[in-house]
Amino acid sequence: MKKINIAVIGLGYVGLPLFEELRKYFNTFGFDKDQKKINFLKKKNKNKKNYYVTSNDYSVLNKVNLYIVTVPTPIKKNKSPDLSFIKSASVTIAKFMQKDDIVVYESTVYPGVTDNYCAPILEKYSKLKYNKDFYCAYSPERINPGDKNHTLRKIRKIVAANNPKTLNIVSSIYNKIIDAGIYKIKDIQIAEAAKVIENTQRDLNIAFVNELSIIFNKLGINTKKVIEAAGTKWNFSKFYPGLVGGHCIGIDPYYLSYIAKKNNYKSKIILAGRKLNEQMVNYIYSQFKNKLKLKKINLSKSNILIMGITFKENTDDFRNSKSIELFYKLKKESRIVHIFDPLVNLENMNNELKKYFISKPKKNFYDGILLTVPHKTFKNMGLQKIKSFQKKINIFFDIKNIFNSSKSDFTL
Amino acid sequence: MKKINIAVIGLGYVGLPLFEELRKYFNTFGFDKDQKKINFLKKKNKNKKNYYVTSNDYSVLNKVNLYIVTVPTPIKKNKSPDLSFIKSASVTIAKFMQKDDIVVYESTVYPGVTDNYCAPILEKYSKLKYNKDFYCAYSPERINPGDKNHTLRKIRKIVAANNPKTLNIVSSIYNKIIDAGIYKIKDIQIAEAAKVIENTQRDLNIAFVNELSIIFNKLGINTKKVIEAAGTKWNFSKFYPGLVGGHCIGIDPYYLSYIAKKNNYKSKIILAGRKLNEQMVNYIYSQFKNKLKLKKINLSKSNILIMGITFKENTDDFRNSKSIELFYKLKKESRIVHIFDPLVNLENMNNELKKYFISKPKKNFYDGILLTVPHKTFKNMGLQKIKSFQKKINIFFDIKNIFNSSKSDFTL
Repeated sequence: MKKINIAVIGLGYVGLPLFEELRKYFNTFGFDKDQKKINFLKKKNKNKKNYYVTSNDYSVLNKVNLYIVTVPTPIKKNKSPDLSFIKSASVTIAKFMQKDDIVVYESTVYPGVTDNYCAPILEKYSKLKYNKDFYCAYSPERINPGDKNHTLRKIRKIVAANNPKTLNIVSSIYNKIIDAGIYKIKDIQIAEAAKVIENTQRDLNIAFVNELSIIFNKLGINTKKVIEAAGTKWNFSKFYPGLVGGHCIGIDPYYLSYIAKKNNYKSKIILAGRKLNEQMVNYIYSQFKNKLKLKKINLSKSNILIMGITFKENTDDFRNSKSIELFYKLKKESRIVHIFDPLVNLENMNNELKKYFISKPKKNFYDGILLTVPHKTFKNMGLQKIKSFQKKINIFFDIKNIFNSSKSDFTL
Repeated sequence: MKKINIAVIGLGYVGLPLFEELRKYFNTFGFDKDQKKINFLKKKNKNKKNYYVTSNDYSVLNKVNLYIVTVPTPIKKNKSPDLSFIKSASVTIAKFMQKDDIVVYESTVYPGVTDNYCAPILEKYSKLKYNKDFYCAYSPERINPGDKNHTLRKIRKIVAANNPKTLNIVSSIYNKIIDAGIYKIKDIQIAEAAKVIENTQRDLNIAFVNELSIIFNKLGINTKKVIEAAGTKWNFSKFYPGLVGGHCIGIDPYYLSYIAKKNNYKSKIILAGRKLNEQMVNYIYSQFKNKLKLKKINLSKSNILIMGITFKENTDDFRNSKSIELFYKLKKESRIVHIFDPLVNLENMNNELKKYFISKPKKNFYDGILLTVPHKTFKNMGLQKIKSFQKKINIFFDIKNIFNSSKSDFTL
């Protein structure tokens, strides 16, 4: 292959670290539609050599011969796959693509998308022929937001292509930036399938422990202690109950069930897990109302504090957060709801939600506190401090059981 | 405590190894209702000192002060827990129990059985008072039949009791025979819950990959390769599709869903997994009929060979085996069905099934072969040898994908 010029399309939590690593070894351009993000990156990195990010300079794409697509693959309102970002990225690429170019997809998809959805788009807008004039590869992202141990270089990376030459070229590129090694696959669909089942397995296993939590709650048994005990068996996988939001675990199962349904199979296990996890917000909400009632606290006259609004702990990302869903439920029926989450950057927040944020909870003010996201900062804050925000008669939900369960009215 | 005399009640795959280890350190008696088994053990161990097993000598129970119950806890036809063995063991113990005695249960149960089911039986027939005159402990068995790496001494053992003194006594006894360490729990129900979720998690995860197998089969994707690929992610748990039989994984979920239902919760995830795994025999059977049809082989005129009849690989245990269920389905519609399983001891087999066993498959005889259980002996036999049993036009199902999948007509 001639000199490699790379474009990373989509500079989110997947594309950005990838771009940052690739540019150490290759001539690499970063693209993102979000002009604000591009401005921010440009400003932040203005003294770095060859730091090229843009939202509109398509002329550089003429130089590029390897495109890496790291755009989001969310779901639509009806829970079916939303491939619009992958489509528009593919259309753009196709317009600049030249003979022998390679397009690598990193986004989560269902098996068949690269070959049967993306490649035809690339063909249509480029007038080139797939597997003759240009080639595709699939290398699923495995970024775990908020995880400081499993960072890009330290996560083993799958690279898949349908022909050996493309597989070797793409693998050798990733090999420069991945210390944990490359796992080569000769069939793109195997890799697409592998990616989509990873998070689906997590979703299902969390649904399982959520169901256990519902059962054990009825029996007066602490679920966390049960899981710790079962975890002493060599082949038990420790998962803990909780709310499942974000853009991976709660999304990927719908990609898998979509392609199953397309092939006349209605998922039983996968969708059972999804359904249960979707219902956990209602479950927590109804438990909260019950506990208030037991202490004769009137929700409509109550001040409520939600601690943690992101989709998981130790991240500032609140997209598809279930805590937000819980917030809206509580807002409807209570007097005041405050949100306290020191990790969230309010600049990215819509105005409606923003006004409920407080930078410091009030003392002796709240009838109910729900600690929904176990940020380290809350753990460090300690139980005593958190309890100081409460009125004398109160309800405290330590959803993720980060403190002694005897000190809270409810844990999952 | 005075000198410890132990009785192990139930000498199956759980009780027997336990008895064998305990008698190295303690005065230990072994009980089993099965006179044939007792005769066999007596004969086999006749020169061993203090090797005392019996089916009817209850007089020794007067000397015993620590009882360990290792009887089966199966399910009834309606899938509800069958506690009859645990009941009859408890009744027997109660009749001989004296002040300060301890009863340890190892059988899988749902949370609450030791305290709310067993202890009342012990009280009733002994006229002694639980937690005053006598004590209970729960120490769930974790024996993995056919697993040569995880043997009794090498598996970490949970010991649970509701008071510290009993917990210490029982832990110190097990500590003698367990090299992997004791995990002490101060609440019996936590331990009961931990045990019943271990196999339930496995059942669900196997159901998940079984569902994947059904989906990927429709897409023409090899499930095993997908799982191998996903397994390169640090937090993916590798489970493989297959038939779930035996007396643990396929049973324990019903114990859990039973106690959930008793408490007005209808399990969604747990029973969804169970249901799918129960249906896998039908799925394989219908796939087999389809493939025969495609090759224009008439099932009613066919000779069929089932390789492997035990509930899992490398064991001689065929109780609750799903391969037997598959056999009966095939028997109804085909000309001849042979069973080939060199691991099974035909002495323990009922006469009806026995007559279908062959010690050596015929050459060029079978229209269809289903390799259902991946015994090492079948792997060692090799594909060529197995194929020599077949007619020229044939169907070969390598259910567990132990050979190259391109060489078989179907794998899960």
